Amino acid sequence: MARKTLNVGLVGCGFMGRTHSNAFRQVRTFFDPGYDLVLKAVCARSGDAARSFAETWGYESVETDWKALVARPDIDLIDIATPNSTHAEIAIAAAKAGKMVACEKPLGRSAAESAAMVEAVEAAGVPNMVWYNYRRVPAVMLAKQLVEEGRLGRIFHYRAKFLQDWTISADLPQGGAGLWRLDAAVAGSGVTGDLLAHCIDTAMWLNGGIREVSAMTETFIRERHHTVIGQVQPVTIDDASAFLARFDNGSLATFEATRYARGHKALYTLEINGEHGSIAWDLHDLHRLEIFDHRDPGITRGWRSIHVTDSDHPYMGRWWVPGLQIGYEHSFIHQMADFLEGLETGVTTIPSFREALRTDHVTDAVLRSARDRQWVKVAAGGA
Amino acid sequence: MARKTLNVGLVGCGFMGRTHSNAFRQVRTFFDPGYDLVLKAVCARSGDAARSFAETWGYESVETDWKALVARPDIDLIDIATPNSTHAEIAIAAAKAGKMVACEKPLGRSAAESAAMVEAVEAAGVPNMVWYNYRRVPAVMLAKQLVEEGRLGRIFHYRAKFLQDWTISADLPQGGAGLWRLDAAVAGSGVTGDLLAHCIDTAMWLNGGIREVSAMTETFIRERHHTVIGQVQPVTIDDASAFLARFDNGSLATFEATRYARGHKALYTLEINGEHGSIAWDLHDLHRLEIFDHRDPGITRGWRSIHVTDSDHPYMGRWWVPGLQIGYEHSFIHQMADFLEGLETGVTTIPSFREALRTDHVTDAVLRSARDRQWVKVAAGGA
Amino acid sequence: MARKTLNVGLVGCGFMGRTHSNAFRQVRTFFDPGYDLVLKAVCARSGDAARSFAETWGYESVETDWKALVARPDIDLIDIATPNSTHAEIAIAAAKAGKMVACEKPLGRSAAESAAMVEAVEAAGVPNMVWYNYRRVPAVMLAKQLVEEGRLGRIFHYRAKFLQDWTISADLPQGGAGLWRLDAAVAGSGVTGDLLAHCIDTAMWLNGGIREVSAMTETFIRERHHTVIGQVQPVTIDDASAFLARFDNGSLATFEATRYARGHKALYTLEINGEHGSIAWDLHDLHRLEIFDHRDPGITRGWRSIHVTDSDHPYMGRWWVPGLQIGYEHSFIHQMADFLEGLETGVTTIPSFREALRTDHVTDAVLRSARDRQWVKVAAGGA
Amino acid sequence: MARKTLNVGLVGCGFMGRTHSNAFRQVRTFFDPGYDLVLKAVCARSGDAARSFAETWGYESVETDWKALVARPDIDLIDIATPNSTHAEIAIAAAKAGKMVACEKPLGRSAAESAAMVEAVEAAGVPNMVWYNYRRVPAVMLAKQLVEEGRLGRIFHYRAKFLQDWTISADLPQGGAGLWRLDAAVAGSGVTGDLLAHCIDTAMWLNGGIREVSAMTETFIRERHHTVIGQVQPVTIDDASAFLARFDNGSLATFEATRYARGHKALYTLEINGEHGSIAWDLHDLHRLEIFDHRDPGITRGWRSIHVTDSDHPYMGRWWVPGLQIGYEHSFIHQMADFLEGLETGVTTIPSFREALRTDHVTDAVLRSARDRQWVKVAAGGA
Repeated sequence: MARKTLNVGLVGCGFMGRTHSNAFRQVRTFFDPGYDLVLKAVCARSGDAARSFAETWGYESVETDWKALVARPDIDLIDIATPNSTHAEIAIAAAKAGKMVACEKPLGRSAAESAAMVEAVEAAGVPNMVWYNYRRVPAVMLAKQLVEEGRLGRIFHYRAKFLQDWTISADLPQGGAGLWRLDAAVAGSGVTGDLLAHCIDTAMWLNGGIREVSAMTETFIRERHHTVIGQVQPVTIDDASAFLARFDNGSLATFEATRYARGHKALYTLEINGEHGSIAWDLHDLHRLEIFDHRDPGITRGWRSIHVTDSDHPYMGRWWVPGLQIGYEHSFIHQMADFLEGLETGVTTIPSFREALRTDHVTDAVLRSARDRQWVKVAAGGA
Repeated sequence: MARKTLNVGLVGCGFMGRTHSNAFRQVRTFFDPGYDLVLKAVCARSGDAARSFAETWGYESVETDWKALVARPDIDLIDIATPNSTHAEIAIAAAKAGKMVACEKPLGRSAAESAAMVEAVEAAGVPNMVWYNYRRVPAVMLAKQLVEEGRLGRIFHYRAKFLQDWTISADLPQGGAGLWRLDAAVAGSGVTGDLLAHCIDTAMWLNGGIREVSAMTETFIRERHHTVIGQVQPVTIDDASAFLARFDNGSLATFEATRYARGHKALYTLEINGEHGSIAWDLHDLHRLEIFDHRDPGITRGWRSIHVTDSDHPYMGRWWVPGLQIGYEHSFIHQMADFLEGLETGVTTIPSFREALRTDHVTDAVLRSARDRQWVKVAAGGA
Repeated sequence: MARKTLNVGLVGCGFMGRTHSNAFRQVRTFFDPGYDLVLKAVCARSGDAARSFAETWGYESVETDWKALVARPDIDLIDIATPNSTHAEIAIAAAKAGKMVACEKPLGRSAAESAAMVEAVEAAGVPNMVWYNYRRVPAVMLAKQLVEEGRLGRIFHYRAKFLQDWTISADLPQGGAGLWRLDAAVAGSGVTGDLLAHCIDTAMWLNGGIREVSAMTETFIRERHHTVIGQVQPVTIDDASAFLARFDNGSLATFEATRYARGHKALYTLEINGEHGSIAWDLHDLHRLEIFDHRDPGITRGWRSIHVTDSDHPYMGRWWVPGLQIGYEHSFIHQMADFLEGLETGVTTIPSFREALRTDHVTDAVLRSARDRQWVKVAAGGA
Repeated sequence: MARKTLNVGLVGCGFMGRTHSNAFRQVRTFFDPGYDLVLKAVCARSGDAARSFAETWGYESVETDWKALVARPDIDLIDIATPNSTHAEIAIAAAKAGKMVACEKPLGRSAAESAAMVEAVEAAGVPNMVWYNYRRVPAVMLAKQLVEEGRLGRIFHYRAKFLQDWTISADLPQGGAGLWRLDAAVAGSGVTGDLLAHCIDTAMWLNGGIREVSAMTETFIRERHHTVIGQVQPVTIDDASAFLARFDNGSLATFEATRYARGHKALYTLEINGEHGSIAWDLHDLHRLEIFDHRDPGITRGWRSIHVTDSDHPYMGRWWVPGLQIGYEHSFIHQMADFLEGLETGVTTIPSFREALRTDHVTDAVLRSARDRQWVKVAAGGA
């Protein structure tokens, strides 16, 4: 089969620049996409950082101004892996330049910002997607498949948590490289936009829209040294965020995220309870899906721990043999594979910008509910 | 040592009548209390039921009217194991008659009812306690010990759930023997008073007072056949109940209980996250305590699964040898042992009626918050 | 129903005297046996120990000479809970006196000793059983049920281990109360007779006879202070014992027991692998059975963790409600219930002395194989 | 830093060809080796297969005769990923041609074959290594580190199993692509060389030499259709293999491997018990290490589940952030990184051919012991 080429221009070379770049490199080897991805250029404000990254990952060229990158005629896809505060401007410009756009989550710092981004890509008619990568963990995709088949029956409960512990020390500064997530001006919010956004994205994909929320947030450490400003500053992000919710389908939910749960590194957990069965998953053992099927014979009913590594499990036919697990980064490879397949078939890869906007409507509602101490209805609409 | 005798009169011979009676029988063998418990009389409305129960458990006599039981001069302790709607009347009468009173949880159907009970036992000056048995699971008592020692440091988060699935079928009737828990008139509430009460009791014991709550409740099956009334009736209990809370110590909490979580039989789970460490426990594997200690050396840090069966673990020196576990009913035996020891030492066994009232203030607040859709402050006071 | 009485005379008041006595007391309350057990007498060499035990457990009288106990006309059942070296003499005398005999495992110190015991009870025609209690753990009984139903198909593998760590310290003495298990003259052997005997008993019950074995044993600490002799003596027991085996049905097995497995208190584990499914269990979480059923649909196949606490699980209808677990001592209560039921129905309760003798033939073969460093066929016969 | 190039020639493009090729591609990106690996050529008997593989993985050229590949002056490293029967001939030729040699495990089909290979690479003085990849799983490397530090004290027990279930169906043919592992002529042996070789390699690396073994093997399905020969043929491999062993340090071991353990896909487990602590690991959750440290305070002692994903855990600083796991294929990348570092520092990457030969001496002893039904001493020496 003759493959087309797709020239990628990456903005940002931090943690997410690495996960995306690895996906670009590995997708061709393990999947059979209709496109050869060419790592055309990487852009970072520091030329040295860009060059070093390009050398490591095999990018052909570097830029230090993302506008120059967007302007290049040899770029097909702009991939955004920068801090949240820059997502909107870059994405809108890229769309206007007719580029496909892939954007790290969350889309914008607020639903308003995100709505403008949706408008831009839809006006330009360019393919677009947001890197909510956890949907593409094989066990999570299997959960989706089982839910779609109606295995669980009427849904009663949804539960999700994302627990970390990396900001407990009061000595940790805020701001600057790797620490912009503690700076609300850059990040938009704290754990609500960073961690809960993942939980909400998966939840609505699996269980439909969220109707209303009642939330609380907390900032445990109120002041931290700011490495950019050079002095102690108030901390303006939410360190912890929890909310009650009702889904459109009538089910009840609890959501919680925090960076103050000692002993948990990146424990994203989810559970769905339905009339006929239940499903549970967690990121610390990401290749396993726990399911309970009430229709199993009574005396042998129990939670099954499925080691999602068989060739008939989602994506796993592309990897090794049963029993041999894959890791975190593979979820990005899978998303890229689906994106490329979507280009061929014309089916939009989910989540698109428009779908991701729904998550921002929920996080907005969560933050407002916590501030106003009342139940808040989630805004229905889109752009 | 000369032992005193303590004559027990039990009211109610259902599930809880059995757990209490077993505690009365086993405490003497495995602990070394200063009292010999004498199973003097059991009372049930049905004489046949009472006689059969007495024969099985070794009660010396039966009554069919609890007032007659309370009036008997040969009874020292009235133990209440009847449906919730009768707790207050019996307890108050027993206190007035100068009896010690032990009452199955929750104390009353509402804080108001409970407050009257507190007043009665305190006015009478009689020893009293409420059977919040889960405190006496060895692993939970070990958790208490670790918290008391300050091992966790400042507390950030508390999380508790009590998940069951036994009422999912719409064919299950309400009311009558074994099913009064679905009848709000008898039970007071649904899962809030039945299951969350346990979670709240343990939580405040481990982590201090709860300041305010935001709750939601749901009744998934709105009508059920009523076995007593003989026709389909609206269901007035809460099938599910979840709430956000803030503790007096500033920590955040999520609580949830439901009888619609397919695959979970009696999954009471709790977790506390503190600055230096975390603790987790669940009732389905009740002899294990999971702890995380951040002060362990970095490369070997991990959650430890403590098999709480050693002779230096709480209560376990009284049972078998390390590795051999005990079960659910032992928590009642332990509570009775502590009660008898308290009689000797003059230290009130916790939870007393007064302490248990605090839990009812929280459940009241939860139900009001769910009804009014707003944050509710927990009433501070007592009787 | 009119109940008959059964008068029990217990010999030995150590750890096993306690587990048996608790069974005698609890069986009447939780099961509905045709017999009332009367705790008639307990016998120990020390009158003080016997009296204290009798007071705690409710025995009506004490003896200090087991021969006197055996001679008493008011005793129906002699229960033997003494060190192994005394089993044979007591059991044979009891049988000759026409008493029913229950004996703590292992039966004798060797198959020869056991064979004489079998001969005695069979010649006397008295009911008899050996306390291989682990068969009566509900999860293990459920495993038996599934195997009997042919759920696993042809069996390929059996695996069992019993791992402890309580004798690792070189400072631990041998001999005397509680430590006779380290003295081969009293115990017969070390872990082979103490721990492997349990594994072998369950294995042959579940999977049929063992044909041949190849074993190794080791004594890690070669000398210990002997508390009775009062000086350092060679240790003559096996601290660890492992063997390969072939069952009559062609399946292969590995067995291992040790008291030098740091971190394991009483970790008895077993696993069976068959054509259609597998089963696994361990004593540290004894209420759970893990099963794998290959006939489950491919993408949702996984090991199921069955929380064996439902009313339709073996024995569990007698206890609490689903989700609430029981413990170690309950296995003895269940065995007593089955024994009493067997008296009514005339069906011998397993394991009888004759069945338990089979285990001694295997442990004999294991010890001989380890000594001679060669494969040894298991003696087929009985007494 | 100026990087040197290292030109790789791969023989074999099956499963192992893929894992090795992925390692060659990824090592440069995630580690910082002194060498750029160039995928110079891949060789397979089928030109089509070779071309397709080259296209997928980016090999510059193809060969259909490994002798032609070995003869090419532009190849620095010959990597052998063919069926076992061809390892020796290719490796010896490559060594004679002065190439570095990397060989998939096991080295040869027998210790004799392997010894000739050792002789060849040592005579030629070429760098060499065998792909016993599981040593490079971060959790296993952490185990090695803890053992080296003496954390466990004197070792009493070692236990390893490798359980699979993929050959249970009698309909599965033998021979041919992907099924040569069932053909003893090609594979050398069944699970002994395939699975136990991994267990033995790790065991001797962690716990020193194995002195003697007593083994049993079994072939459950005695005849299968042979896809190459085209008719039913006897099966000559061992389907299952288990053995007892004594290590040079006096510790005892049990080893077992099978392809008939229903429910286990690739369950490689290992456990070491020492005086002060124990360690356990399994391949199905490969990023976790379980450790027990007896020096922890008594009441909080328990098995710790270490999620080996921190930046100070072996290799993990090269990947993502704490909590995010890696998978199976990464163990090959790590081994290649170590090999390249070894080229720089002159330290031989383990296991070298010579070290891997020790494993073949053990597997030879295992097979002989099973055949002769007796204990067999492991041959001490090397080539």
